[in-house]
Amino acid sequence: MVRTVSVLGATGSIGKATLDVLQSQQDRVAVDALVGGRDVAALAQAARRMQARVAVIADPDAYQDLKAALAGSGIEAAAGPSAVVEAAARPVDWTMAAISGTAGLRPSIAAARRGGTLALATKECIVSAGTVFLDAVKAGGGALLPVDSEHNAIFQSLAGAAVRDIKKMVLTASGGPFRSWPLERIATARLEDALQHPTWSMGAKITIDSATMMNKGLELIEASYLFGVESGRIEIVVHPQSIVHGMVEFRDGSVVAGLAPADMRVAISHALGYPDRIETAVGSLDLIQIGTLTFEAPDEKRFPALKVARAALERGDGAIAALNAANEVAVEAFLARSIRFIDIMPVVIETLEQLDRRNGLAAPRDLEQVTALDDEARKTARNLMQSISNQTATQAKALP
Amino acid sequence: MVRTVSVLGATGSIGKATLDVLQSQQDRVAVDALVGGRDVAALAQAARRMQARVAVIADPDAYQDLKAALAGSGIEAAAGPSAVVEAAARPVDWTMAAISGTAGLRPSIAAARRGGTLALATKECIVSAGTVFLDAVKAGGGALLPVDSEHNAIFQSLAGAAVRDIKKMVLTASGGPFRSWPLERIATARLEDALQHPTWSMGAKITIDSATMMNKGLELIEASYLFGVESGRIEIVVHPQSIVHGMVEFRDGSVVAGLAPADMRVAISHALGYPDRIETAVGSLDLIQIGTLTFEAPDEKRFPALKVARAALERGDGAIAALNAANEVAVEAFLARSIRFIDIMPVVIETLEQLDRRNGLAAPRDLEQVTALDDEARKTARNLMQSISNQTATQAKALP
Repeated sequence: MVRTVSVLGATGSIGKATLDVLQSQQDRVAVDALVGGRDVAALAQAARRMQARVAVIADPDAYQDLKAALAGSGIEAAAGPSAVVEAAARPVDWTMAAISGTAGLRPSIAAARRGGTLALATKECIVSAGTVFLDAVKAGGGALLPVDSEHNAIFQSLAGAAVRDIKKMVLTASGGPFRSWPLERIATARLEDALQHPTWSMGAKITIDSATMMNKGLELIEASYLFGVESGRIEIVVHPQSIVHGMVEFRDGSVVAGLAPADMRVAISHALGYPDRIETAVGSLDLIQIGTLTFEAPDEKRFPALKVARAALERGDGAIAALNAANEVAVEAFLARSIRFIDIMPVVIETLEQLDRRNGLAAPRDLEQVTALDDEARKTARNLMQSISNQTATQAKALP
Repeated sequence: MVRTVSVLGATGSIGKATLDVLQSQQDRVAVDALVGGRDVAALAQAARRMQARVAVIADPDAYQDLKAALAGSGIEAAAGPSAVVEAAARPVDWTMAAISGTAGLRPSIAAARRGGTLALATKECIVSAGTVFLDAVKAGGGALLPVDSEHNAIFQSLAGAAVRDIKKMVLTASGGPFRSWPLERIATARLEDALQHPTWSMGAKITIDSATMMNKGLELIEASYLFGVESGRIEIVVHPQSIVHGMVEFRDGSVVAGLAPADMRVAISHALGYPDRIETAVGSLDLIQIGTLTFEAPDEKRFPALKVARAALERGDGAIAALNAANEVAVEAFLARSIRFIDIMPVVIETLEQLDRRNGLAAPRDLEQVTALDDEARKTARNLMQSISNQTATQAKALP
């Protein structure tokens, strides 16, 4: 049986890996829509290669270029944010939601509401619009399959078990480039240091989140929403080898763990094949060659993001959305060398406090409220950074 | 809903752990039959404590003692091998098959044939009567749940997956007391050395099997029969910490692993609760405290049992049954200091060769043929050992 599939975010790293997997299954899948952000050439090439029916570019100014690039292929071209949402709402059996940032929110929700299986790589769906997004999934009645390695590992370990049977979930963290750095040294961390991720090659934003460990904090939040398990039953364990990605301890004392090599195609293939399994051209995990796996407790003194994220999770949707927005602009500022590494978390914390004093961090009830809260948190964080920036930009730029 | 349960082998170590678990579930289980071997006092005490309906002792001479020990309790007493088989055939929802050695064969098969869930701890069911036993399970139509930690871990990792989706299964081995001993030193191993198991406290027979690694060889065979996966897809990995017990690599590259603390109650609870989970009073597995897990390849030069067991598995039921019988008498002889540690494997290999020349190691088709083959293998091994024994008994006893 041929399944129809769409890929939202087809030109990003998850999107490319998804196309790789889809290509290996060409006799079993038919590509409907491919959605890209700005890279017209890559999108058009992918659409031709996969014989997609529709290709949509988010950048509205790129319409003519895309049309030209698809000339003679018979593939329909479209451009702009509403075309992206329309493409996401087209009826298909399986959708990969992999548009990064808040831009991914509306299309992912449109796909969720439509139903069918939704493979989820866009973190913002949960950390920005948690309940609103899950309500859309419920309304659509389709399956939601997490694609990032930690949640995919937990999903596989759970194997459909009831929430009451879960004693504890464990998300592992590589610990990032500063895992073994003392606090004083972290205080002097340069952008170049923070960009050195030990095990995964990822985009700049997520690499910095990995250095602060906010990435793991956001994943903690995601796990809580995805699996319906409260903060107190989710543990983070530092595991520098990044082989074990997630674990579930059941109330009978059994522990089931999900392992995989550092290749996104594994989780993508799982999500594409589910509930069956498809063949993947990924090498076997060779534990004998790896030899040693280590586990250690995360240090919340050196990595306060973990505590901040956990507090936001316990507070609810409003705090989580503000946390995510504030963190995003703070990381952008760090990437622009406007603030120091150790300024990121204070900006996030202070943004949450200001918003709390202003509106009590009320949970957004629909997508408009999600966007409003996101905007407000970003503005608040930017204002806060203005003052920090004035003080420390010179310092930051002067770091060796 | 109260489930009726029976425990075959209630006075052994698995049986005791099972009673422990059953006691914690007293409002949800009703104990029907408890079967013991020789320990009348322990059996009677357990039967009273669990308010069993029937208590059966295998030793026919113990009938009067058991009757006296149960006087006034209203619990029915019986004794002798046929009473054991009758008790196993009583209709209950759940049976623990934990009678060790070939004595467990008939009662386990009776329970399998009757149907209901069979929690399997008796290794001989598969390594002595593989196809005959599985046919009985099929005829009974009940579920078969493996209780030893490795197969239980694999069962949990599989979560019902299809055999075609399995790329590879991994059974872990502690490596036993001689894991890091060079071959020359193993050649001088004394009984006392072989009895020092690094992670589990078990009976003498299985501890010696762990030292030769025949235990893992037999588990390889069990895994193949239980999960319907051929030898080439089952790997053995040495993992001295015995935390990860088994793993499954799926064809999409995902690996799911079963972990547990070294406490049999975890797997027993899993088997009792399945497909739900019950609460167990077992401490959580603390990977942070454990810190390091290591994995290494098994050395078939120093541990030829692995190769011998794999060859028997590839040969079929006849070779497996002979392997198990010959190994059992060879280990008994080593425990009696009649042969040396390094004589065990040559006895097994030579027994298989002699039987092969004699009858081609034909697969037994029923329980009578299983018993006949088992007897013949034991006799052959004993004859072989007679000559070895004459040569080396003095040497063995003279070891420092």
